[in-house]
Amino acid sequence: MEQVKEYIQKHKKRFLEELMELLRIPSISLRTENRPDMHNAARFIKEKLIAAGADHAEIIDTAGHPVVYGEKILQRDLPIVLVYGHYDVQPPDPLELWNSPPFEPVVRDGKIFARGASDNKGQLYMHIKAFELLTQTAALPCNVKFMIEGEEEIGSPSLENFCRQHREKLACDVILVSDTTMLAEDQPAITTGLRGLSYLEVEVAGPNRDLHSGLYGGAVANPVNVLAGMLARLVDENNHITVPGFYDDVLELTDAERNELAQVPFSEEAFVQSLGIDAGYGEKGYSTPERIGIRPTFDVNGIWGGYTGEGAKTVLPAKAHAKVSMRLVPQQHSEKIAALFEKHFMTLAPKGVSVSIKKYHGGEPYVAQTDTIGYRAASLAMERTFGKT
Amino acid sequence: MEQVKEYIQKHKKRFLEELMELLRIPSISLRTENRPDMHNAARFIKEKLIAAGADHAEIIDTAGHPVVYGEKILQRDLPIVLVYGHYDVQPPDPLELWNSPPFEPVVRDGKIFARGASDNKGQLYMHIKAFELLTQTAALPCNVKFMIEGEEEIGSPSLENFCRQHREKLACDVILVSDTTMLAEDQPAITTGLRGLSYLEVEVAGPNRDLHSGLYGGAVANPVNVLAGMLARLVDENNHITVPGFYDDVLELTDAERNELAQVPFSEEAFVQSLGIDAGYGEKGYSTPERIGIRPTFDVNGIWGGYTGEGAKTVLPAKAHAKVSMRLVPQQHSEKIAALFEKHFMTLAPKGVSVSIKKYHGGEPYVAQTDTIGYRAASLAMERTFGKT
Repeated sequence: MEQVKEYIQKHKKRFLEELMELLRIPSISLRTENRPDMHNAARFIKEKLIAAGADHAEIIDTAGHPVVYGEKILQRDLPIVLVYGHYDVQPPDPLELWNSPPFEPVVRDGKIFARGASDNKGQLYMHIKAFELLTQTAALPCNVKFMIEGEEEIGSPSLENFCRQHREKLACDVILVSDTTMLAEDQPAITTGLRGLSYLEVEVAGPNRDLHSGLYGGAVANPVNVLAGMLARLVDENNHITVPGFYDDVLELTDAERNELAQVPFSEEAFVQSLGIDAGYGEKGYSTPERIGIRPTFDVNGIWGGYTGEGAKTVLPAKAHAKVSMRLVPQQHSEKIAALFEKHFMTLAPKGVSVSIKKYHGGEPYVAQTDTIGYRAASLAMERTFGKT
Repeated sequence: MEQVKEYIQKHKKRFLEELMELLRIPSISLRTENRPDMHNAARFIKEKLIAAGADHAEIIDTAGHPVVYGEKILQRDLPIVLVYGHYDVQPPDPLELWNSPPFEPVVRDGKIFARGASDNKGQLYMHIKAFELLTQTAALPCNVKFMIEGEEEIGSPSLENFCRQHREKLACDVILVSDTTMLAEDQPAITTGLRGLSYLEVEVAGPNRDLHSGLYGGAVANPVNVLAGMLARLVDENNHITVPGFYDDVLELTDAERNELAQVPFSEEAFVQSLGIDAGYGEKGYSTPERIGIRPTFDVNGIWGGYTGEGAKTVLPAKAHAKVSMRLVPQQHSEKIAALFEKHFMTLAPKGVSVSIKKYHGGEPYVAQTDTIGYRAASLAMERTFGKT
């Protein structure tokens, strides 16, 4: 352990410089114009895996963005830990809300500010450096594999197929993922469950052209008014989702389980303060940790229609759009929920408009077992590092 | 009359070329970058008034865009007709819906396509050319004044003050406005009433930054969801507006008046067909002509918030915005209605968000008397031209 700490001290500056270099690459998976940056980021990670001590590392193409794979097999009979991470990032819009440019990392108050610094380049780089120092100080106790993808922020459309194709290569005993969150800055957490996702884009189309609201207003269904009304009707006054069948497969927690969840250290006051709001908001009958942790949701992620520029334009717009998503919990299924949503949403449309819906790739909710060697090892590591469980 | 027709034939080509020249000027009053174009359009009109035979024409500055004034006083004791028009146009967005560039006029099927061709450059130019041919053929029967403004599309913020300042200069017996509409291509109409307008912009602000919907969704008021719900609650299931006091000052028509309105030639089928919709939509208990002509309305003219680009981004946005407007009828007052709206809208906000509202300049509804010499002259002219009333 002493040797490991020494190695960190000696190489800390280089570690940070390398991370900064990775953060400077605008690897935005959503934008086609950033495709060259995706390859630069993948190449960078491959090189660092080799430099850290991997026996082998490669960039594997997919139908979308490439996956970086690397491995170090110490001894065939030791357990294998597979580290997952992603080198892609979300678009940095709206740019005006950044205090410094998103791809020019800066350190303020001991924190690095850059797009991807905390999701997920920082974490994945931490794993690569942990691997490096364990390898270089001959302290590595197990076999290690890395699978670093470039499509997490767009729903990992190529990953399922990639895993099927490379089943043997990826074989492992434990998967280590740190694309997760902590309960507070001084309160670690091991994520044992993740909500799934159904994501759709809806279009409400009215008249065949933008109209003057003075000449037509009041006699023609306005697609923005209609869309607002349809979205509003998807939740009731208790913030329950009104899509028929939506809750059918939801695994309800027992009172004992809910009591256990209520013991987790959580401050509602700190939560709302950190967000600059005066109160939480959500499904009636559930606490904030329950709303975030065990309940499905409906959120509008984006909406647009009509005139959005400077000043007042009296347009009755031809179309309105929204991107909407639902977070899912076990045993909901993303395709089933998307289909239920689509069916119900269509019924909400009045005469005078037509509705079309585009479904994006979803994700399934997951709950991990905790009576495993991997969980116990992670728990012990957290305890030793943070001094608490 | 023969002489007038001859003059038209002789100068038709030049008339059209001049109109095309005016249509090429992108005089978008809303956009500050088009300020030089506003002056070019004003100068163009002033020159054409002089060339047409005005005794005098000038460009008069205001706090906003200038007004073009011109006059020909034949004899002090003849009646004075003041022609109103506006040389400014709406922004041409969305550009992708244009078949030809908005400021490059083209003739297709005997119609001119360009921004402003039918609102209001075409009409105002028709008046200038009518004035020219009556002057040049010595057929002008009255005194004529022109007042052509450049702020109609942004609510004419400078016009009231302009009229007060130039009260004597603008003195007249009849005001002629053709910034109006026809019932159908072969069915003329004289507009005797106009709806007013209250226009506001609302902002719903939630958390102090964009959040990840996976980490926070379900426990934080999403400003887009909230805005959609608030907008939806502004109308009830009969499409009545729910703002308390909104209808208090509405002048209800008598049954006799509604019966008279029902006699106006109007085809619901042609109306919906021309718009490419399957049905009209609006306040229960009123016909389409009534919804357009005598009832107040609520329309969302624009809405925006969250991620609106390509693909799926799981953002819980910090803010959502909408531009909303209400068309008003006698005796509603735009400032009173804006204040009622603001008061009511604020009450619709749940905890967890804050709402701010910006009021734009409104306009008052108006009904003209029809037992006047001006109305009878216009009616006669329509009948002679179209062969019907």
